[in-house]
Amino acid sequence: MLEDKPSRTELSEIGEFGLIELLTKNISLRNKSSVKGVGDDAAVIDYGDKQTLITKDLLIEGVHFDLTYVPLKHLGYKAVVVNLSDIVAMNGTPKQVIVGIGASNRFSVEAIEEIYKGIYLACDKYNVDIVGGDTVSSVSGLVISITAVGEANKEDIIFRNTAKKGDLLFVSGDLGAAYAGLLLLEREKATFKADPNMQPDLDGYDYILGRQLKPEARTDVLELLKKTGVKPTSMIDISDGLASEMLHLCHDSDLGGAIYEDKIPIDITTAGVAEEFNIDPTTCAMNGGEDYELLFTISQNDYEKLKGVDGLSVIGHMSEKNEGVNLISRSGTYVPIEAQGWNAFFKK
Amino acid sequence: MLEDKPSRTELSEIGEFGLIELLTKNISLRNKSSVKGVGDDAAVIDYGDKQTLITKDLLIEGVHFDLTYVPLKHLGYKAVVVNLSDIVAMNGTPKQVIVGIGASNRFSVEAIEEIYKGIYLACDKYNVDIVGGDTVSSVSGLVISITAVGEANKEDIIFRNTAKKGDLLFVSGDLGAAYAGLLLLEREKATFKADPNMQPDLDGYDYILGRQLKPEARTDVLELLKKTGVKPTSMIDISDGLASEMLHLCHDSDLGGAIYEDKIPIDITTAGVAEEFNIDPTTCAMNGGEDYELLFTISQNDYEKLKGVDGLSVIGHMSEKNEGVNLISRSGTYVPIEAQGWNAFFKK
Repeated sequence: MLEDKPSRTELSEIGEFGLIELLTKNISLRNKSSVKGVGDDAAVIDYGDKQTLITKDLLIEGVHFDLTYVPLKHLGYKAVVVNLSDIVAMNGTPKQVIVGIGASNRFSVEAIEEIYKGIYLACDKYNVDIVGGDTVSSVSGLVISITAVGEANKEDIIFRNTAKKGDLLFVSGDLGAAYAGLLLLEREKATFKADPNMQPDLDGYDYILGRQLKPEARTDVLELLKKTGVKPTSMIDISDGLASEMLHLCHDSDLGGAIYEDKIPIDITTAGVAEEFNIDPTTCAMNGGEDYELLFTISQNDYEKLKGVDGLSVIGHMSEKNEGVNLISRSGTYVPIEAQGWNAFFKK
Repeated sequence: MLEDKPSRTELSEIGEFGLIELLTKNISLRNKSSVKGVGDDAAVIDYGDKQTLITKDLLIEGVHFDLTYVPLKHLGYKAVVVNLSDIVAMNGTPKQVIVGIGASNRFSVEAIEEIYKGIYLACDKYNVDIVGGDTVSSVSGLVISITAVGEANKEDIIFRNTAKKGDLLFVSGDLGAAYAGLLLLEREKATFKADPNMQPDLDGYDYILGRQLKPEARTDVLELLKKTGVKPTSMIDISDGLASEMLHLCHDSDLGGAIYEDKIPIDITTAGVAEEFNIDPTTCAMNGGEDYELLFTISQNDYEKLKGVDGLSVIGHMSEKNEGVNLISRSGTYVPIEAQGWNAFFKK
């Protein structure tokens, strides 16, 4: 992918300060709370009486992404979005990001700029300021570390540990698509390795490829909830898969819970790809991860307000801790949910 | 170093969640502003009417540190301190850190814990809370990404771009020692490679080795300045070397400036080591970096208040932009200061 670039400037040609200058010269601050952005020892953020939310994620080449099929621009976009999604999962509004990139000399200045183009695009879309950046050399591979900062009124913040017994479990959008997209991309990579003249066969898979390569943070779901007047009792974003996130909600709230298999929203394309790969679509949803949908609980009293709202599905409920955390299969069998989610140390 | 450990738990044995649990179970929050720490999508920090400062640094094995001579605990300590130093350089009080670690399976759980021991130690010393952590797998090597958050009253924050013509230039402590320490450690490494039976010969070098391996953030200098009633007109911490930081102050404040070579504070051990290596001690101070001392400017009216204060040296002044940025040598020659500071992309 890098070989296609018309020009290649070595990082050593422009140096660290040259690169920072190049990457940050177009940044303009749009949030009043962004008092000082890049160009000093630290960013200055003023929140008055709001509360500050901060999150960070580290993305490492060969572990979290594979540059043989992930375009650099998409990578930059996704690196920002996965962090914004964490702010959204607290019912906060993302406001700032700080970007750290470690790149070996395998990467040209143009390659780093391409990553930044994706970062800019995400920041534009979500109205977020870049208030700091640090680009350093790495011995091998690419590392992207993003810190996202958001704001929320104290009373609006939604934690993971505040679900109540009897609460209903909702999820936004559909699940498993990002994992199905990954399966396809991995297959194309294997095919390409076997025969570099093969053309990728990805027609008709736009939706699930987009879910893998260009996920979105569900700020729109927060808007929707606000409109309906419902404040979830607990919330988390689905980065590691439904199973893992459900266990977090139950564990942290000291509850049990159940998810009904037949209620899990799965797109028809996802189901089709799962079938092609001989994988149960439910497994894609439960353990695939990277969907960045919101999983939340609401009081039963609020059910009427969300019932039938487009893009939200009720998939289960919270119960006593001693009832355990179960998936109730189509046949009515209770299957204990285990943490088989994406595990950084099992994935090679 | 890792081979000496009595036990070795593979990261894959305890998994991602197990590791997070292990590393975070002893964290208790000490700052009132730390509303929510690890264990949710994002940390929650409440600043009321204070301003928030945020900074981050990415440290990469083989570039920023060499594990053949840097103990893991020291590494964890230093990774925190270099970030706190950025908050201090804004005249802020460090309050929280968020820790991201990427480690390959070359590292055991005990190794990661050792890094965390250093992180805890630094947080204890500086009264800082760990409010988030993310430990992921890396394909090769170790990556540490720390985000530090601090607070300051709006009127107390000191930027880089607010120095005035005629202001006096001060520096805390002494310079070049961290680089002299690095020279020694690199020599020992080379000696050890040539003959593994050689014992390291580091007697009498405690001070400069400490400066390299266990730097401190100069919160005490901020206290000192507060006591004297002097507020610097601009400030920066010396991470890349005096030359580079002076250029930042001058460039950002749209000024020229001069540093008097004979005024630069250099410890006698540093000068001795520089001589051993046939390097000008001034070069160590100007281009060595990693001293984490504070470089700041004050109004001439404040000079009497700082004159003779122990641990602070006046080393130059700010002038018109067209006079350039110069080092005035012992013989009175004006030598233009160039950005030869530590450059991530020239260092292999």
